[in-house]
Amino acid sequence: MPKTNIGKFFEDYKIGMLLKHAVPRTLTVGDSAVYKALYSSRFAIYSSDRFALDCGLGSSPIEELLVFHIIFGKSVSDISYNAIANLGYANCRFLKTVYPGDTLTAESEVIGLKENSNLNSGILYVRTRGTNQEGETVLDFIRWVMIKKRSNESKLDDPVIPAIKENVSPEELIVPAGLKFDKNYDFLAAGENFTSRDYVVGELIDHFDAITVDESEHLAATRLWQNNAKVHFDTTIRRDGKRLVYGGHVISMVRSMSFNGLANAQMVVGVNSGSHVNPTFAGDTIKCWSQILGIFETKVQGVALLRLRSVAYKGEQEIGKVFDARGHYFPNILLDLDYWVLIPS
Amino acid sequence: MPKTNIGKFFEDYKIGMLLKHAVPRTLTVGDSAVYKALYSSRFAIYSSDRFALDCGLGSSPIEELLVFHIIFGKSVSDISYNAIANLGYANCRFLKTVYPGDTLTAESEVIGLKENSNLNSGILYVRTRGTNQEGETVLDFIRWVMIKKRSNESKLDDPVIPAIKENVSPEELIVPAGLKFDKNYDFLAAGENFTSRDYVVGELIDHFDAITVDESEHLAATRLWQNNAKVHFDTTIRRDGKRLVYGGHVISMVRSMSFNGLANAQMVVGVNSGSHVNPTFAGDTIKCWSQILGIFETKVQGVALLRLRSVAYKGEQEIGKVFDARGHYFPNILLDLDYWVLIPS
Amino acid sequence: MPKTNIGKFFEDYKIGMLLKHAVPRTLTVGDSAVYKALYSSRFAIYSSDRFALDCGLGSSPIEELLVFHIIFGKSVSDISYNAIANLGYANCRFLKTVYPGDTLTAESEVIGLKENSNLNSGILYVRTRGTNQEGETVLDFIRWVMIKKRSNESKLDDPVIPAIKENVSPEELIVPAGLKFDKNYDFLAAGENFTSRDYVVGELIDHFDAITVDESEHLAATRLWQNNAKVHFDTTIRRDGKRLVYGGHVISMVRSMSFNGLANAQMVVGVNSGSHVNPTFAGDTIKCWSQILGIFETKVQGVALLRLRSVAYKGEQEIGKVFDARGHYFPNILLDLDYWVLIPS
Repeated sequence: MPKTNIGKFFEDYKIGMLLKHAVPRTLTVGDSAVYKALYSSRFAIYSSDRFALDCGLGSSPIEELLVFHIIFGKSVSDISYNAIANLGYANCRFLKTVYPGDTLTAESEVIGLKENSNLNSGILYVRTRGTNQEGETVLDFIRWVMIKKRSNESKLDDPVIPAIKENVSPEELIVPAGLKFDKNYDFLAAGENFTSRDYVVGELIDHFDAITVDESEHLAATRLWQNNAKVHFDTTIRRDGKRLVYGGHVISMVRSMSFNGLANAQMVVGVNSGSHVNPTFAGDTIKCWSQILGIFETKVQGVALLRLRSVAYKGEQEIGKVFDARGHYFPNILLDLDYWVLIPS
Repeated sequence: MPKTNIGKFFEDYKIGMLLKHAVPRTLTVGDSAVYKALYSSRFAIYSSDRFALDCGLGSSPIEELLVFHIIFGKSVSDISYNAIANLGYANCRFLKTVYPGDTLTAESEVIGLKENSNLNSGILYVRTRGTNQEGETVLDFIRWVMIKKRSNESKLDDPVIPAIKENVSPEELIVPAGLKFDKNYDFLAAGENFTSRDYVVGELIDHFDAITVDESEHLAATRLWQNNAKVHFDTTIRRDGKRLVYGGHVISMVRSMSFNGLANAQMVVGVNSGSHVNPTFAGDTIKCWSQILGIFETKVQGVALLRLRSVAYKGEQEIGKVFDARGHYFPNILLDLDYWVLIPS
Repeated sequence: MPKTNIGKFFEDYKIGMLLKHAVPRTLTVGDSAVYKALYSSRFAIYSSDRFALDCGLGSSPIEELLVFHIIFGKSVSDISYNAIANLGYANCRFLKTVYPGDTLTAESEVIGLKENSNLNSGILYVRTRGTNQEGETVLDFIRWVMIKKRSNESKLDDPVIPAIKENVSPEELIVPAGLKFDKNYDFLAAGENFTSRDYVVGELIDHFDAITVDESEHLAATRLWQNNAKVHFDTTIRRDGKRLVYGGHVISMVRSMSFNGLANAQMVVGVNSGSHVNPTFAGDTIKCWSQILGIFETKVQGVALLRLRSVAYKGEQEIGKVFDARGHYFPNILLDLDYWVLIPS
């Protein structure tokens, strides 16, 4: 029997199949430090135990996007090792705050299968969950990938395309247990004075900074997530000899850059959708802007929700513009992310 | 109201103004591990909890230069985001040892302002302090930067140039609480047998090692300090497309290389001055030498002070020489650092 | 007296000499996190405290190879700073599990000396030991290096070539205290279902993944081990301007890649031999395969030993082949490693 996992193919998946992903992971202050060396994240709640305490938490949590990358990374061997493309994700919710010392596991359920007309590939839809050592779900999201078939002779009888809500609704989002933004909230420490009341729907924020992606940094990040997709590590996969930057790396870069203008957006609680509309490579200089898509109250007094769109691009681009005259993304747009953050109200 | 901070200009500063810098930071064993991966620091007191215990400390402290970089990094947004040049620092003292778990904040007071004759810029002098979670000052230094004016129409009436003592005097330097170098001090573990008595004023030490600066390593370091100065990250800032290495990165490299010949110089307690006399870029191969500028007793028996000059250069250079015939630094001298360390006497 | 250590020469060593290496090191969860960012290691026992607990350990241990690199790194200043070549190591045993918080020291005993016929150099054999803060030996190995002589006038009278057993025998290997692989062992979490009974002697496993070595990653690794051998850091040492990748970096890459097919090989307990048959440089894309050399029971029920040969190569190479028709290693073979791991039986 061959010992090596060469990944699954489209025919290997059945609706309802539950895949328990290997290698649980205990996250520590070491992971948080490496995350800072990778992204220079400056949101105060992740940076200072004291600030986190003033916000009602026991200590600085593990950043939500670090949790996302870990859970996503665990799913690669079972879901996307042979993926032709990561098509999208949706309905992502962070349900329970993760702290240093917590151990996370991941599993995915097959919720949709649709063969492509070329018969060489199909689309696999999964719902992926991350769970902590108490069995509590910390993260839940849907993603879909285009995946190779073993054979174009095989035939899927009944395609199942899951009903995916376009967005998470504000009511479905969870304010972390204990979180409060009250008179102890230190705006000076956080870096800006803006509460949810200072933003207006439609407002555009140019985050102003620009960062050039370095080869080693995205490799170190992707290794830290134990994400072993070949296309990130092996220069012999792509014809151009380039290593594709893991899309989540760009998401974390954008989140970190968004501090300038959104410094009080302390926690990410959900993602409606994330599209990596063009590939990112080492050497690209990335800038980003955000737009306020919505402002909502939560059940916790003082804690508001912002729905944000953050767009990463390289080169020169007018802020707020992503589509050409024909409605296609400009070739220098890299990421179009629609997500939810908590902010003092 | 625009949400993005694009940095302050010369006209924004007034004498006596106190700037509380954003984003407190809890330092952990994770930060110390990343610091080792960046600089390979080998001074035993930071490397071994047991060695630190034998020196009267509770555990290995956070390296003083790591503390410096963190506090300096916090000041960038308020002080040097629009700096044309970092001109110097002085009177730096490490006043309280920082341990894993401590949370640091930073603030700067404006102590000097002087317009340049070109009317486009001016010189800003600040005194920056780092404070721990108990409100104790851990670090105190003066720095001055050349900074853009908003307009060359504006006019500063009365220049204030602060009196900056050329050097910290030995009496002003603080031996960390509890520190002792006594019969438990393990010279074998430390790596060398030399005490303060083995050095003579004027002595030159060639540290012998050479390290080539790598792009990713200085980027990771600068991100870890949450230092967001554009010139370090963005290849589109400089005409030559290069990213300037943060000066403090060179200081930490030199400190680490100085182990070879100064292995018992366990703790840094002050910096008289640090001049980045030429810019450093990835690809430069750095060597360094030190000179003993002074040897002093402290109030703690067994603990002596060395005043050191450490000079970093690239290429070939005679040890001990920094100036050409006209008294200008040679173009391959990168750093001229004058500082204080503690050593067994 | 010159303060700088420029390393020892062949004439400086005497049989029986004991060299206590400098700079003890406390290992932490920070080091484990950096190790993950470097190698993306996925063996569950190092990744999850819960999994380690289910295997009878108190928490995830520090990876054995990380321990090896730390102890090896400490020996460089005294043993191989002036080495012309690292010729080999043998009889390596991991004797005591290392946990975050443990402090390690290293020492080497000179056990062999043999002059080369060219009179310019000789071969030094040492036995190196790593010890924890309780004085327990955690690691023990023999290595031999070719080392420069001070002078070709000097003459060694009696060469001593130590008797080095070709392999560690299974009886000499230590199962970590408390380790058990019983009904609590979670094969799903570990990633594969194979126990020692599923492998056969002679079986070849193609680990399938490929990773391109990046300059910054091997530099960061080598710094983390406080290994200051010049040839890894200084582009001016080799005529081709390349920095040689530390051999242990390739070993850790291979161990991590071997997860795919050997996911239950949870702990490394010994190394028979490791040959870096050709140098590795940044840019090389590394693949590897393993062969099962032996399968043995231990005294602990449920815990078996695998003797493995893992071979790293670059470019294209038939699995299982390392020698050309004349019995020389192919030029694209990088590492030939013969070692022992524990696996459920």
